[in-house]
Amino acid sequence: MTTQFAEARKGRTTSAMVSAARSENVRAEEVCRLVGLGHAVIPANPAHSCLIPAVIGRAFRTKINANIGFSGEKSTRRKELEKMKIAICAGADCVMDLSVGKSSATLRKDMLATCPVPFGTVPIYDAFGRAGGDVTRLDADLLLSVIAEQAEQGVDFMTLHAGLLKDHIKLALKRVTGIVSRGGAILAEWMLEHKSENPIYSRWDDVMDICFAHDVTVSLGDGLRPGCIADASDKAQFAELAVLGQLVRRCRKRGVQVMVEGPGHIPFNQIQMNMEREQKVCDNAPFYVLGPVVTDIAPGYDHITSCIGATAAAYYGASLLCYVTPAEHLGLPTSADVKAGVITARIAAHAADVARNLPGAVERDNAISKARADFDWERQFDLAIDRETAKARYEKNRVGSEKNDHCSMCGKDFCALRTTKRLRKEK
Amino acid sequence: MTTQFAEARKGRTTSAMVSAARSENVRAEEVCRLVGLGHAVIPANPAHSCLIPAVIGRAFRTKINANIGFSGEKSTRRKELEKMKIAICAGADCVMDLSVGKSSATLRKDMLATCPVPFGTVPIYDAFGRAGGDVTRLDADLLLSVIAEQAEQGVDFMTLHAGLLKDHIKLALKRVTGIVSRGGAILAEWMLEHKSENPIYSRWDDVMDICFAHDVTVSLGDGLRPGCIADASDKAQFAELAVLGQLVRRCRKRGVQVMVEGPGHIPFNQIQMNMEREQKVCDNAPFYVLGPVVTDIAPGYDHITSCIGATAAAYYGASLLCYVTPAEHLGLPTSADVKAGVITARIAAHAADVARNLPGAVERDNAISKARADFDWERQFDLAIDRETAKARYEKNRVGSEKNDHCSMCGKDFCALRTTKRLRKEK
Repeated sequence: MTTQFAEARKGRTTSAMVSAARSENVRAEEVCRLVGLGHAVIPANPAHSCLIPAVIGRAFRTKINANIGFSGEKSTRRKELEKMKIAICAGADCVMDLSVGKSSATLRKDMLATCPVPFGTVPIYDAFGRAGGDVTRLDADLLLSVIAEQAEQGVDFMTLHAGLLKDHIKLALKRVTGIVSRGGAILAEWMLEHKSENPIYSRWDDVMDICFAHDVTVSLGDGLRPGCIADASDKAQFAELAVLGQLVRRCRKRGVQVMVEGPGHIPFNQIQMNMEREQKVCDNAPFYVLGPVVTDIAPGYDHITSCIGATAAAYYGASLLCYVTPAEHLGLPTSADVKAGVITARIAAHAADVARNLPGAVERDNAISKARADFDWERQFDLAIDRETAKARYEKNRVGSEKNDHCSMCGKDFCALRTTKRLRKEK
Repeated sequence: MTTQFAEARKGRTTSAMVSAARSENVRAEEVCRLVGLGHAVIPANPAHSCLIPAVIGRAFRTKINANIGFSGEKSTRRKELEKMKIAICAGADCVMDLSVGKSSATLRKDMLATCPVPFGTVPIYDAFGRAGGDVTRLDADLLLSVIAEQAEQGVDFMTLHAGLLKDHIKLALKRVTGIVSRGGAILAEWMLEHKSENPIYSRWDDVMDICFAHDVTVSLGDGLRPGCIADASDKAQFAELAVLGQLVRRCRKRGVQVMVEGPGHIPFNQIQMNMEREQKVCDNAPFYVLGPVVTDIAPGYDHITSCIGATAAAYYGASLLCYVTPAEHLGLPTSADVKAGVITARIAAHAADVARNLPGAVERDNAISKARADFDWERQFDLAIDRETAKARYEKNRVGSEKNDHCSMCGKDFCALRTTKRLRKEK
């Protein structure tokens, strides 16, 4: 019984570290060092047998997460398994199952059986479901038993909203959009109903025991993330963040891996400040941002509004980006939405990796640019983030049936790259 | 015979300034002051009779431009007129007709007859077309006659690649993607063929006379904009920019309004530097950016890669954003691509306006957030950047036929906003 963190503290390089290091093209010792400092995590529950371990942290490629799962009103087990497959094929580095409803335990089991990437959950959902959606029937023991059960199932990381305290609730209810975290809202209602402190916070030592036993990485949930621009960077958000900073230290003391979840809705000019503040308060624990979307006015396009924020977030401090799909704020995403969300999040992650000069990132841009200048369309498609879409769009707009040394955008006579090629030859 | 700039220098507030000021909710005197400094432009050719004047500059709402026009190989007059309508309905603040080919003059006339927003062109296209696509048959007189003809037709602003000099060409040909500007490539070939300096640069005083006579706003083209991340911020780009800075001063001396075009492909970390450098070199002439796309690896999604760059550009210094469509690098955009491009560019412009605290910007975010918290779906759709798309997506994913106090994303029991509402009542 140990964790990647505990081993790293002892200077022991695990097989998971070796595997993660290989995919990052770095030395395993470097992964071990950063995991030991708590600046990187490897969410790898030993019970998740088909997992290919990955490392999340600033020193490595920016990762992206796709949320899947049914909502109790919509979708089926089959559809959500299909979405998981689509998300992973499109390039999701981890997935979270956010299912709520009766058959969520079965679905989770099925997902874990084939999921090659780190798999996360939000245990409060299941606990609340088992309490019949009634906070009066929910208690700390039920919650702990769900956490233990999911840890035994093989869940690699769990969102635990332990930083939202009773005193914070009044700050949050004053906001334009109040509490927008599902887990946060359930816990707030529980605290008001029971006139007690957040049960996850109160029983944190017990939570730690379970997480240590199964090497579950804690993802400290931001139950008070702002749900709109008006609420961004407010007292409620930062009051919770201060508690998350304390909890990071308690995780490390107990040998448990931890990352921290962040906003949410943040205007573009506040992203750098938010990332720097989080890194300071949480002593460089990997930051996992949900978006952030940079404007509220684009429902139907929130994969794009979040892509803007996510690029800035990953440039200034985030290590893991939760995708946002075009369905955000409007309904449960379809399979097509899942793919759009993953691709868009990957664009943000890659753009940030290029901007922060991460070794290996810009090389792909340079290769595709060379292919573009050479009119090597097939190679351009191969190097594209979404081969299928790029190729289909080119084929559709093409004039004639042969691959050309120009495209229909400018046409043959006006193609600047074609002219460049000719000038180079003449020179 | 005068220009908005000349009038502003004399402290005279024109009717175009009054009209533009009204739509910005500022005083006409303020518009007059900034136009007089050259920090804002009002592209308004008196011959464009159906124009509703608008002002472009840092003090005002970030504007977006949509490029339309056929490519000689693809599309028709009818289709391009339709695209213009779609672009304007979706919120384009100006349009440029980039048509090449025989019937471009007729198409331009038809567009100008109904276009209510500033209308731009790139005269070198027509000149090259009339020379039969052969630089040996192209000369400065032909080019000037095309500029004069388009000015008489009512074109409000023209892209003139006057900053690309003969000495710059060798710098550009060394690049990964060389010259990616159509106009830039034609002029480079012309200069090499004729062993002469750029004819637009050589005859700049004559160009100025035409622009002054028709109050055509010069949009100094960036013939050497980088066409990939590898070429960003290189010697060729900045050599041209230095010349553009000189030309800005010559425009102002002659009483001609001027803005400056910029990159292109720029990694996220270089955008701030580029915007600041341009503003310094060009003495705060409005900056009109083409993208910038922040990674090369996402053909099929370049509306998104450019939206990331455009938000940062508009935050740090740009005043006008040229849209990029999902067809970029692959073919001529369809009508659907035009709409996607405009909406995406508008998201960038608005996100930047919110970030730079432009009066009136965040109010819309706050209103839609309130509607969201109140489950006032119709008001949310009304305030959305694309009502139709937001509504259709909600309807499609909805459970049941009535408007609900939740959506299918979380479902009724897990809706955090619904819980917040209940907690507020109980409090």
